This record gives sequence, C-alpha cells and structure tokens, in this order.
Amino acid sequence: MKKLWHHCHAATMTGGRYSIIEDAAIVTDGARIEWIGPRADAPPRFDGERIDLNGAWVTPGLIDCHTHLVFGGDRSGEFEARLQGASYAEIAARGGGIASTVRATREASEDALFETAKGRAIGLMREGVTALEVKSGYGLDIENERKMLRVARRLADALPLTVRTTCLAAHALPPEFAGRADDYIAHVCDRILPALVDENLVDAVDAFCEHLAFSPQQVEQVFRTAREFGLPVKLHAEQLSSLHGSALAARHHALSADHLEYMTEDDAIAMARAGTVAVLLPGAFYMLRETQAPPVDLLRRHGVPIALASDLNPGTSPALSLRMMLNMGCTLFRLTPEEALAGVTIHAARALGLRETRGSLEAGKAADFVAWRMDRPAELAYWLGGVLPNRIVRSGEEVVLPSTER
Amino acid sequence: MKKLWHHCHAATMTGGRYSIIEDAAIVTDGARIEWIGPRADAPPRFDGERIDLNGAWVTPGLIDCHTHLVFGGDRSGEFEARLQGASYAEIAARGGGIASTVRATREASEDALFETAKGRAIGLMREGVTALEVKSGYGLDIENERKMLRVARRLADALPLTVRTTCLAAHALPPEFAGRADDYIAHVCDRILPALVDENLVDAVDAFCEHLAFSPQQVEQVFRTAREFGLPVKLHAEQLSSLHGSALAARHHALSADHLEYMTEDDAIAMARAGTVAVLLPGAFYMLRETQAPPVDLLRRHGVPIALASDLNPGTSPALSLRMMLNMGCTLFRLTPEEALAGVTIHAARALGLRETRGSLEAGKAADFVAWRMDRPAELAYWLGGVLPNRIVRSGEEVVLPSTER
Ligand SMILES: [Zn+2]
Ligand SMILES: [Zn+2]
Repeated sequence: MKKLWHHCHAATMTGGRYSIIEDAAIVTDGARIEWIGPRADAPPRFDGERIDLNGAWVTPGLIDCHTHLVFGGDRSGEFEARLQGASYAEIAARGGGIASTVRATREASEDALFETAKGRAIGLMREGVTALEVKSGYGLDIENERKMLRVARRLADALPLTVRTTCLAAHALPPEFAGRADDYIAHVCDRILPALVDENLVDAVDAFCEHLAFSPQQVEQVFRTAREFGLPVKLHAEQLSSLHGSALAARHHALSADHLEYMTEDDAIAMARAGTVAVLLPGAFYMLRETQAPPVDLLRRHGVPIALASDLNPGTSPALSLRMMLNMGCTLFRLTPEEALAGVTIHAARALGLRETRGSLEAGKAADFVAWRMDRPAELAYWLGGVLPNRIVRSGEEVVLPSTER
Repeated sequence: MKKLWHHCHAATMTGGRYSIIEDAAIVTDGARIEWIGPRADAPPRFDGERIDLNGAWVTPGLIDCHTHLVFGGDRSGEFEARLQGASYAEIAARGGGIASTVRATREASEDALFETAKGRAIGLMREGVTALEVKSGYGLDIENERKMLRVARRLADALPLTVRTTCLAAHALPPEFAGRADDYIAHVCDRILPALVDENLVDAVDAFCEHLAFSPQQVEQVFRTAREFGLPVKLHAEQLSSLHGSALAARHHALSADHLEYMTEDDAIAMARAGTVAVLLPGAFYMLRETQAPPVDLLRRHGVPIALASDLNPGTSPALSLRMMLNMGCTLFRLTPEEALAGVTIHAARALGLRETRGSLEAGKAADFVAWRMDRPAELAYWLGGVLPNRIVRSGEEVVLPSTER
C-alpha cells in the first residue's frame, strides 16, 4: 500500500546533519520509504493515499540505543531516603542499590516484568521513539537473564516498536558469586551466554567495565565469547574512572562504548578507527551530579559518531523521556541541537547495528518517522517537555498509543 | 452535583507534608471538596455518582506559581547559535536576548499570543497543573503589557484552569527608555500600573531586582505603588547576586520572593517573619548552568515555606514540565520529594494568594486534584518524564485536554 505524505519539511539526518528538505514529500510503500525529496520533484501521478502533514517537521523515528527498561521494583524509595539524609552505606545496609533491583527482578514473574516494561516503553514511544535497545543485567543467572530478554522480545511483538536485545550478564556480581568475580565471568561465558544465544534471545553482548564491576581482562573474556558466537559487542566504559575500556571495545570492533566521561584521546582515536559509536548518557551524569562531562571536543576532532540515550534504569537514570536527553546533551554536554538529534537517530541506529535500515529518511530505509508541530528542528532540544509528536509512523503505519490506563 | 471518588490513596499535602490517607474517599459537591477521609469513615448513604479511581494516588492539582508563558517568538534559534559557538555579545549584536522577545511580543497580535500561550498552558496541564500564574513583562509599555495580561485572562476563560496574573512591567528596560531607568520606573508607577489595574488585569505586582535590571530603590517605588492599589507584591531576587531584594520583599509583606540563589540568612529570617514564600526555580539554574544553589538549609531552619515553579520563559527556562521541576528541585537543590510536592501544591498556592482555597485536599477547598498511577508519591519527583496523570479533576469536573493538533 503506497502513501504520499506531504505538506511538511524534513530533517532527514542523512550524513549526521539536519540535511533539510523544505516543502518535502515522502512516498512510502508498505514498511519502506520508496522516495523522499522536494514536493516539486515528487512522482507526478500517484494513486495511493495522500496524507497532509499540515506544515509539520518530519524527523526519523527516534532511537533509544541504551536502556535497561526491564526491571523489577523501582528505587523511588531509595531516591527519597537519600534526599532525607540516608548515606549510601545506610542504603546498602538496608539492601538498597543495584542488589535491590536484582532481588526484585528475580522475584517478579515474566508477566509482571512485561507489564511494567511495556508501560515504560510506551512512555518513550509517546515522544516519538520507534526503536530501542533493551539490556538484561538484573537477573545475573540463566533463568532470570532469560526472563528479562524474553520480556524484551515480547515488547517487539506487542508494540509497534523495533527492539534490539543486549545480554548484559556481566553487569554486576550476583550475591551467590560474592568475592568470585573470575568464577562468575567464567559462568557467564560457559553457561549463561551459550544458553541465551541458543534461544535466539541475544542481538549483542555488553559488560560493565569499572573498578566496582569488572576489569578489562574479565571484559575481554566476555568479548571473546561473544565473537565466537558471531555477536557484536558494546561496553559501559569510562563512566567513573579511566580503565581504557573504550579502546578495548574498539579493538573488538564494538558497536558502541557508552558513558565515556573519563575517556582519553587515545581511546577516541581507537574508537574512530574502529567506527565504534560514543553513546553519551546525560541522564546518569545529571542524576549522579557528576562534574566531568565526556570529552565531546575530542570525539568531534577525531570523528567519532556521537549518540545519546536515556540509559533508562531504576538507580541512576529513571528517564522516561528521550527528548529530555536531547536537552541535557546540549545543556550539560554542549552538543549542538543538530548533534543531539543525530545522536538519537542516525548514530543511535549505528550503535544498534541498524544503520542500513534505520536512523535517517532515505529511499529504501524503514518508513519510521515522526511529524512534529514546530518551527525548527532545534526546538526538539530546546524545550524541556512539551512538543509532543503530531504523528508517529512506524513501518509506514500510524502508531496509536493507548491512553493512560485507569 | 455530588460525587464520591473512592478506591484511592491521598497525599493531601495538609500542613506541607504528604499527610497521607490510605484507602481514602473524597466527596465533592460541585466545585468544592465536601468531605475527605478514610473510606471506612465516609458518609454511609450516598446518592450521587461514584467514581472508582482504581487504586490511584490522589494529590492536589499542581500549581505553577511562576511563569512567563505569554510571549512572542521563541529563542530556540539563539539556543542553537550559542551551542554552535556564538558568544553572548554576538547574540546581543544580532538583536537576541530578552530584547528579541520584547520585539516579537510587541509585534504579535493578541490572538497569535493567545494561541501559543494556550498550547504551552495545555502542555503544563497534561501533567496535572490546575492553576498557574502568568506574568507580563515582555510588553514594557501600556499597550503591550495590557495585551499580555488580556491573554492571561483569556486562558482562564478558555481552559479549565485557574490563572493569576502578575504585572511585571519592571522586568527590563524597554529600548525607548535606554539609559533612563528611573524615568521608566516612574512611567510604570504613574501610567502602566494604574491603567492595567483599572482594567482589572492585575492580581499582583512583580519586579526584577538585579544589577542588570532594577535597583532595590526602584523596586521599592513599584512596591509602594502596588500597595496603594491594595495589590500584593512579589520579586525576582538574588538570582545572580545579593542585593537583599528578598528582605525588601519581606518588608512589603510580599507573597513570594523568587530565585534566591544568593540570599543571606538575614534575608531568610525576614521572609520567615513576613510569611513570604521562597519560590525556587531550578529550570533557570539548570539552563544557565549555575553552580550556587539557593540555601535550602537556611530556608528550612527558619521555616520559610518553599515553592517550586517552572519559570517558563523563552530565554532561561523553556520548561513545559512542572514534573521535571520536581526532579530538578530534588536532584539539583536537594529538596526531598515531599518538599518538592509541597512546593507545587500548598506552598505554591500560598505564593499566589490562594492558600485559603487551593493547594491541599481539605473539606471546603476547591475540588482540584489529580489521580496518578503510581505506588508512592515520591515517584512524581523520581521519574524524568512519564507517570502521566490518570485523571485530572478541576472544580469537581474531569478535565479533558485536546489531543495534539495536526
Ligand atoms: Zn547502562
Ligand atoms: Zn521569572
């Protein structure tokens, strides 16, 4: 079924720039863009449906390339306790922190996890997200990592949404392996990953490289296992200190290295060479009140593609708004609005291995786009809240989201 | 028409605390709350409509007590230029900054201003705002200040929303008075204020006390004029430096002093004595990347009521989300979620002179409330985005907002 979408301007994001087409038209054929260009050049005879976008700006569907949106419980109680004066030590003594999320995730049924995850995905989709990544990493054993990734797969069946799954079994040390990190990494490589890959639950493999998590040597083992399975890798790196995880990720041709506050110039050079995307996560930076921003100038200078994501997670970034991340990317990290928008479209697609099919408005790519009522694309990053999409189109079909449940 | 709202928990915010009623019921009679309490104590026979809130949490309708939401143009272009490297001087040379908003506001028709202001008001209302303040201050002459305040009055007619108007003619020096601040203040006191008060457009009077705006002496003249008209005052004070505007405001029994990053302990003592509310504006603090937060501990110690507001304005806080301000109040200013919620309910009502009728759920007050799908009230401040209201009730009637325009 062909459709002609017209009376709009398009920020196509081709080449990582706005790449604007004024007075544009888009022809979609089923789930694909067949043609896009100035309306004056549109195919003269057109028999399909014509849709008037009423002067809206059209962008690619937004892509959230780093989320932990499947989790049990939330940590609003801990958020409140900390602001009431409880120390991190007190909260840990009460069983708080990531351990509480692991516990709650293990205790939750798959259906219960699915329902809360679906609500969060819909929250992101209301702002124009048409594709997102979901990481495991709160199960930390075969059964519960499987449960999380099955929920991620179910989201893609239940919603008009492209979902990429990432196995993050190497997120934290589970209590049953306390003091035995090497043993846990061996368990991840020998048991967890093979089992989940076998069930086709894993599109990519991630790890958390940090003093309080896993060492570069341990991460390397996980990466080697991933490559044996032919799976691409990504890495949580350089968030709180410099372990050169991003250069390690680049050596393994990682899709992305994420966070990166403490990366060095050598890390940036390695990433640029490997084509590894820098995924910046301003929500966690903001919530943790960090002061060292990622070195955006280095990334620019060496031509590392920059993506932005919500990092949606219950501890450090309970962010149900990718648009807020556009503003924070600009305000806190000094990205331009154009870089920020490229960071949730074309570069985010690349960070998920989707750059051939998504992230920009081009003939042959998926007909995933958003029509926004605004005067210029910079408004997407400028306003805090507001500017809701007029229409969200995914695979050539208009997305209708459920109204808030009662 | 009486209604019984049941199957809910209530954070009534009485006394500035959550003041929770578990398993609550609310009886409304027309636009007022007739009764609220534990369901077990509800009137046994009830003939009116019964509304099942399905386990939601009910809070008072949110109140945004400091906005500049009527303005022409926006400054997204300037936001973008600055991030592309333009200096403040270059932007000023291009006619940017507040001068550009004054120009665009003067050029806009009343109807055009009304349409954009209405869109912004609806953006705030989607998150549960049932009352808000609108300041003038981009007209800076009789005709255009009148136009702004007329738009504010029209919002209250067009939407299920309580609007309080504030004349902020002493916001900035208009170009025609360049270098003649005393003359402009005399013009405000002798011409602008009397004309607008005469047309019943002014509920309160505000000024901007800062080196780059007006001096305490000039503000005092404006305040004296306001008091002659029997109007309450408020003040933009101590945002960028300490001029003791907040103590000046307190001496004039101001409803509120707003911003307050640089206030001193003596200022806090004066405000506490006068019952002047401290209105904190984390959106501007965040967008300007300020580092000195308002002295929340001082405010607590001296018992100054703390409100939070969007400061919605095109230059320093393009914030269409009061809920984002809850998070920023906690994350950036270290308020507790309870203080933050009190800041957009009971203390915000007081900052608008509405404390007898609004801001908490009590018999006799307006039936303005919001039902939220969440497990605990702290979630309102915890999540960035998301958690949309299930239902918004204003004057006892459910609010139905227009879907996004196409
Ligand atoms: Zn993460
Ligand atoms: Zn203001």
